[in-house]
Amino acid sequence: MKKIILLLPIVGAAVAAHAQSSVTLQGTVDIGVNYVKGSRTSLTQLMSGGNATSKLVFRGIEDLGGGMYAMYWLESGFNADNGTFQASNTNNQPSGATPANGMSFNRRSIVGIGGSWGEIHLGRDWSPSYETYTGKFDPFALGVGLGLNYAGGINPNQVRASNAIAYISPKVFGGFSVNAQHWRGENASGTATSGDGTGGGGRLMYDNGPFAAAATFMRTKYAAGSAIYRSLAGAYDFGPARFSFNANKDQQGTLKQSGWMVALTVPIGVTQFKGSYSGIRTNQAGDPEGKKLALGVVYNLSKRTAVYSTLAVIRNSGGGTYAFSGVTTAPNRSSTGFDLGIRHHF
Amino acid sequence: MKKIILLLPIVGAAVAAHAQSSVTLQGTVDIGVNYVKGSRTSLTQLMSGGNATSKLVFRGIEDLGGGMYAMYWLESGFNADNGTFQASNTNNQPSGATPANGMSFNRRSIVGIGGSWGEIHLGRDWSPSYETYTGKFDPFALGVGLGLNYAGGINPNQVRASNAIAYISPKVFGGFSVNAQHWRGENASGTATSGDGTGGGGRLMYDNGPFAAAATFMRTKYAAGSAIYRSLAGAYDFGPARFSFNANKDQQGTLKQSGWMVALTVPIGVTQFKGSYSGIRTNQAGDPEGKKLALGVVYNLSKRTAVYSTLAVIRNSGGGTYAFSGVTTAPNRSSTGFDLGIRHHF
Amino acid sequence: MKKIILLLPIVGAAVAAHAQSSVTLQGTVDIGVNYVKGSRTSLTQLMSGGNATSKLVFRGIEDLGGGMYAMYWLESGFNADNGTFQASNTNNQPSGATPANGMSFNRRSIVGIGGSWGEIHLGRDWSPSYETYTGKFDPFALGVGLGLNYAGGINPNQVRASNAIAYISPKVFGGFSVNAQHWRGENASGTATSGDGTGGGGRLMYDNGPFAAAATFMRTKYAAGSAIYRSLAGAYDFGPARFSFNANKDQQGTLKQSGWMVALTVPIGVTQFKGSYSGIRTNQAGDPEGKKLALGVVYNLSKRTAVYSTLAVIRNSGGGTYAFSGVTTAPNRSSTGFDLGIRHHF
Repeated sequence: MKKIILLLPIVGAAVAAHAQSSVTLQGTVDIGVNYVKGSRTSLTQLMSGGNATSKLVFRGIEDLGGGMYAMYWLESGFNADNGTFQASNTNNQPSGATPANGMSFNRRSIVGIGGSWGEIHLGRDWSPSYETYTGKFDPFALGVGLGLNYAGGINPNQVRASNAIAYISPKVFGGFSVNAQHWRGENASGTATSGDGTGGGGRLMYDNGPFAAAATFMRTKYAAGSAIYRSLAGAYDFGPARFSFNANKDQQGTLKQSGWMVALTVPIGVTQFKGSYSGIRTNQAGDPEGKKLALGVVYNLSKRTAVYSTLAVIRNSGGGTYAFSGVTTAPNRSSTGFDLGIRHHF
Repeated sequence: MKKIILLLPIVGAAVAAHAQSSVTLQGTVDIGVNYVKGSRTSLTQLMSGGNATSKLVFRGIEDLGGGMYAMYWLESGFNADNGTFQASNTNNQPSGATPANGMSFNRRSIVGIGGSWGEIHLGRDWSPSYETYTGKFDPFALGVGLGLNYAGGINPNQVRASNAIAYISPKVFGGFSVNAQHWRGENASGTATSGDGTGGGGRLMYDNGPFAAAATFMRTKYAAGSAIYRSLAGAYDFGPARFSFNANKDQQGTLKQSGWMVALTVPIGVTQFKGSYSGIRTNQAGDPEGKKLALGVVYNLSKRTAVYSTLAVIRNSGGGTYAFSGVTTAPNRSSTGFDLGIRHHF
Repeated sequence: MKKIILLLPIVGAAVAAHAQSSVTLQGTVDIGVNYVKGSRTSLTQLMSGGNATSKLVFRGIEDLGGGMYAMYWLESGFNADNGTFQASNTNNQPSGATPANGMSFNRRSIVGIGGSWGEIHLGRDWSPSYETYTGKFDPFALGVGLGLNYAGGINPNQVRASNAIAYISPKVFGGFSVNAQHWRGENASGTATSGDGTGGGGRLMYDNGPFAAAATFMRTKYAAGSAIYRSLAGAYDFGPARFSFNANKDQQGTLKQSGWMVALTVPIGVTQFKGSYSGIRTNQAGDPEGKKLALGVVYNLSKRTAVYSTLAVIRNSGGGTYAFSGVTTAPNRSSTGFDLGIRHHF
């Protein structure tokens, strides 16, 4: 899927000097029809990103010689159903959420240096646990099929962190890699909450052929109680099908939440069938719990374009009110979601 | 005017797999000096988009084989005189207007599948009546020369609709085509205004050589009274000149508005002379009415670059206060507008 | 550093017609670790643009024949540490500041026509004094090393102006050039502040081989007192080192401010050492004054990529409270700033 825009020097300048210059411009447009229903409301809507987030990416690599390279990655997510863009966060705290609608590089904004020893990134980056929620482990990862364990995250850095420094190791010992990250909350010093939003974490991963696994730990400081996030994920591709799972424990102060997901993906020709079962439970009064069953099919018209459809049901217990985006459901009632869309990578 | 950025696979990957990959990056920068005057105020300003909207476009087509293709079109309008961007709308209702300034794909944000049977689009698209106000029928279409019948639209979907599904037929029977569209307001269910913003419409068009014509009908539901929009347009190019017109009837509840425009375009060498006469009338107290005469000249320095100038006068009656953007005029007084600018397509 | 994306016509169209079509897509990602300290607070943060502003640029030139060309330049600044974008200004007055976060072409948004007689630009452009604060005269120009004389500008057009018309002459008489500019505040007429934000200015510059010098004057009207800005700058490259300075006088009504900076840049191989000493003083009670010493090093990994570090100290007197961005210091106390970052041009 990687494409390079050839960048040639302006006529008259020396060609050799920038022969390796490049910027890759790529992206995704994914829009579907979406029907969601809770016990209280229902909604038929167009929705962006049912199979892959609609996005625009500017990125590139420069060979520095001696096995070193510089790299950057600027990625902006948008809501393709109405043309608006998604929000970023400037300080890794709820107060840092920016207004949505205008374009930002909310999904990634990094510059880095790399070599055989790994990569160092500076900027807004995927946090260590990001990888455990991508399609590598959750075959839906987005839309109505997304594992319910992903819902209601307590930690604002569950997916990304701004103001971060990251080290990503190369694969060693036949498939192991490490990601270590630190991010800053950037509050003025001298107050009780000066450290809020500063945190970090790490990921140990194994990825080799049919087998992949990851374990992550992250902690973001808050005077009111640090937000801690742990996740585990694994996958095994046994040919006719691929099994995967992820699980997480999320807490801040006395509030605790845990979730899990198991999934199966079956490719038949250009069609991919997938199903997942996921759950989430918090320690609030009654121990509210939700479980989701999702079934989906992706029909690949090419390597870049697919038509997809997903049907999913959420069931609540213990007073849970988990529902699909856009609708509400009464405690212990269920919610249904369906989508049918087109996904195009460019 | 179409240009393709060649996208080559990263060196080392198989070239054949993505030989057809492409993204077209194009746009327009159009800025002019603009003088507008009403009976109450006057203003000398720089203005964006006197001849063509300043915009940035990312789009592409992928050949899927078997006569099928996938396509996307992401278009963002901006105010080139100050560098800010234009607003979008998330729900096809006045409440969904987004703040301007930050970039959005406010002008178009679609993904689609096409073939010999036509195209299906999902996303924020040109609504059926859009075509009747483009340069195909109104030779000004923008700036101080824009037909006055375009002013004060009651229907937020007069030009575009978010959350839309559209079918666009190919040309059949020597030039006929159909555009049918449905869009969603996406309000929560169970209230009196749940259906607000949901609507649809269609366009029947004929376009063959010197002759073009279109008829459109659109209706967006509102509990307070559906917004209905009808437009008609036609053009005939008889060689030394091209005649065109459009007309519209716009209503919501008891509020009704109607407008019309007739225009002539005369190309002489690389210069284009154009004139239009347009009017608008609403059924408010006194039947306020405005009429505009516009005269313009476009001098093409190349296929992509032009210098243009327009002079236009609005006359009001019945208590009308129609005036050029940025100024106000007293009832039944006139307003004058002038612009002189540079338009560059890239 | 200039690169062109070759734009080829869609297959089937005539190649010759657009053989010269081009859009250059380029930019910078620059992020560093930044430690700043005042007597009251300190902060460790990630910061964008310590060596060069993080930005995205779309620009191009079209040959119109006969020695004429059309050009456009759209440049958007962003905060690469968190992915948000920077603000623009719609009316050259404090009231026209737009919200940051969403992408705008805040750094430049122009269309122009050029030839052997010079260039005419329309839009949001660098104001005449911009050049005297770039790296041409201030070797830091950004980050903790930026000359202190640049701080606290009274004139919103110190760097850029929206709604502007500019004429830039070619170099004549072996290196002289002129920049003359006019910008509009675009307020409604008929009030005392109608003229606010309207202004203009000019720059006389000499630039030839080792020697460069510039003098600028700008004035923006305000009913409360016009904002006047004068700057002078000079540089001489005597081989092993380059000396440069700039100085400015800034005033609005009775408020006056003056500043100066002297700098030395010493290149040794691919490493650049630089130091500057700068000061600023206002005529408020006590004549508060600040002085900054900055020392920096830039290690170029390639023509496009560098690692840089800067250490700077501000000392205050007369009640001055000048401090580095993000921290505060008590009157007459000092402030310290340090950064270490990666800058990559693409």
